[in-house]
Amino acid sequence: MQKIDAELLAQKIINGDRFALSRAITLAESSRIEHLELAHKIIHLLPTSKTSKRIAITGTPGVGKSTFIESLGKYIIQQGKKVAILAVDPSSSLSKGSILGDKTRMEDLAREENAFIRPSASNGSLGGITSRTYEAILLCEAAGFDTVIIETVGVGQSETLVNEITDLFVFLQLPGSGDDLQGIKRGIMEMADLIFVNKADTFQEKLVKDAKLDIVRSLQFLPTKASQWKRKSIIGSGLIGKGIPELWDLINEYYLFIYENNYFQKNREEQQLKQAERYAFDLIQQKFIKKLKEHPISQDKTISAFEMAKNWLNNQHLE
Amino acid sequence: MQKIDAELLAQKIINGDRFALSRAITLAESSRIEHLELAHKIIHLLPTSKTSKRIAITGTPGVGKSTFIESLGKYIIQQGKKVAILAVDPSSSLSKGSILGDKTRMEDLAREENAFIRPSASNGSLGGITSRTYEAILLCEAAGFDTVIIETVGVGQSETLVNEITDLFVFLQLPGSGDDLQGIKRGIMEMADLIFVNKADTFQEKLVKDAKLDIVRSLQFLPTKASQWKRKSIIGSGLIGKGIPELWDLINEYYLFIYENNYFQKNREEQQLKQAERYAFDLIQQKFIKKLKEHPISQDKTISAFEMAKNWLNNQHLE
Repeated sequence: MQKIDAELLAQKIINGDRFALSRAITLAESSRIEHLELAHKIIHLLPTSKTSKRIAITGTPGVGKSTFIESLGKYIIQQGKKVAILAVDPSSSLSKGSILGDKTRMEDLAREENAFIRPSASNGSLGGITSRTYEAILLCEAAGFDTVIIETVGVGQSETLVNEITDLFVFLQLPGSGDDLQGIKRGIMEMADLIFVNKADTFQEKLVKDAKLDIVRSLQFLPTKASQWKRKSIIGSGLIGKGIPELWDLINEYYLFIYENNYFQKNREEQQLKQAERYAFDLIQQKFIKKLKEHPISQDKTISAFEMAKNWLNNQHLE
Repeated sequence: MQKIDAELLAQKIINGDRFALSRAITLAESSRIEHLELAHKIIHLLPTSKTSKRIAITGTPGVGKSTFIESLGKYIIQQGKKVAILAVDPSSSLSKGSILGDKTRMEDLAREENAFIRPSASNGSLGGITSRTYEAILLCEAAGFDTVIIETVGVGQSETLVNEITDLFVFLQLPGSGDDLQGIKRGIMEMADLIFVNKADTFQEKLVKDAKLDIVRSLQFLPTKASQWKRKSIIGSGLIGKGIPELWDLINEYYLFIYENNYFQKNREEQQLKQAERYAFDLIQQKFIKKLKEHPISQDKTISAFEMAKNWLNNQHLE
């Protein structure tokens, strides 16, 4: 990558240049610490948002996530908002769309001036992915996107991490899959603030009603969220837009609730602190990898690997 | 845990006390660095083995791993050897057996004086699991177990790590599943030195022959192993013991081959070096966590999480 002028890139982002925004996110996702530093320099130059929405959306494959997110995204734009959509997992519908060259995925939404869609970088560790997604959120917000949706695939690990950088968690489900709350699903349900039963238009009415009852019943047995918010469920369909306005209303109701009881501010501060810890560890890891390249551990057949490690550490300064 | 006398524990391990061996492995698996140090002190006091066998065995659930390992383990004992069996994944058949309280799992083998069976500790990161498994291997060898089998579940990630601490990789397969070599399975096949087509007695003869042909064909397309060993396959059945003596002969043939071309020694040295790097990183991580507890990152709403991290690091000395 050629020499990048952080101030110029920041100015372009402020002016709504989405190529510049993409480039800054790429910098943040880079495994090189100089690029991350540069991304932070850009973030530092941009206006900060204190009232953005950071929404995690998850659901297992086949639940209709792309169609749902496109439908929700369009509705959000109609409300005069600007929406950015980020995918975390390499296997999420956003990324899959881009890998398979499936142009129809969110094509309508992608054409909107007030929407920004970004498939994830698939490299890096899980921890790394969240660090970088956190930066991507900051960059999108700085570029004026007041609503940021983070899509994950609903297999457990990424959800836990994404939960640590968002305000609100929406879980998509299909009718007829709500009875047994076990394992990963239970873990995700515990994180969820809103449950959207999708594709209600394609299932029999009885099945849909049962699904709703099942969910309401299951939710009783889950521990109360730290925000004190009571989990709510909605029946709808991303495809025909059913339930989307109601969901948006509930999202706004949720934000009002957490603004008022001060959870919003408290949670964001805790998340920032935790993120700082992740950065600190990332920086230490980077330094370690660099030191190891410059001064490899020397082979010594007379001692154990553990002693080799300790001797090496005694000769290094990793502060 | 009360104060532990490393010398006493080492002496007990040398005397064949398997409770002492279990206890030392528990120390090695502990997340406390003092325990790890103690485990290494014990290892240091024990005799080292230079001719042990470290064998990884994997296969997806349902392939009959427990029965196979029990059958192989008994045969190894009959050859006058001492065998230790360690499980890496929390979901491996060994651990599952212990979680479900399924007493019949490897019950016969567990009763043998020359066998030691140890389900894995399920806590810790993947990297952590291997570090600890490496110590468990060293401890078992020091206790006189000349053959150490490490069981994994065949879902990809643990196999890569276990491959880095073993000499030989055995992959269990069922007839009729050998045609398409993709994804995780291809990755595991590339690591495999020996492929055992299990449950041959319960499948139709034609299917078993086809499976063997499929495997032989697939193996042609895999890159040559660093050891220069040509992958081999065997048809058999853990349940009735078919193919087990042939497999043991092939295991010995493999070891002769890698002793002669010096791969055994070279590989063990490389593994030791890599393990030293893992230890170094583990120790840095431990120090980081400790520092973070003693001197938490201070909240500063005027700067970013990244700057908070950098400021904190500038005030710490993590050498």
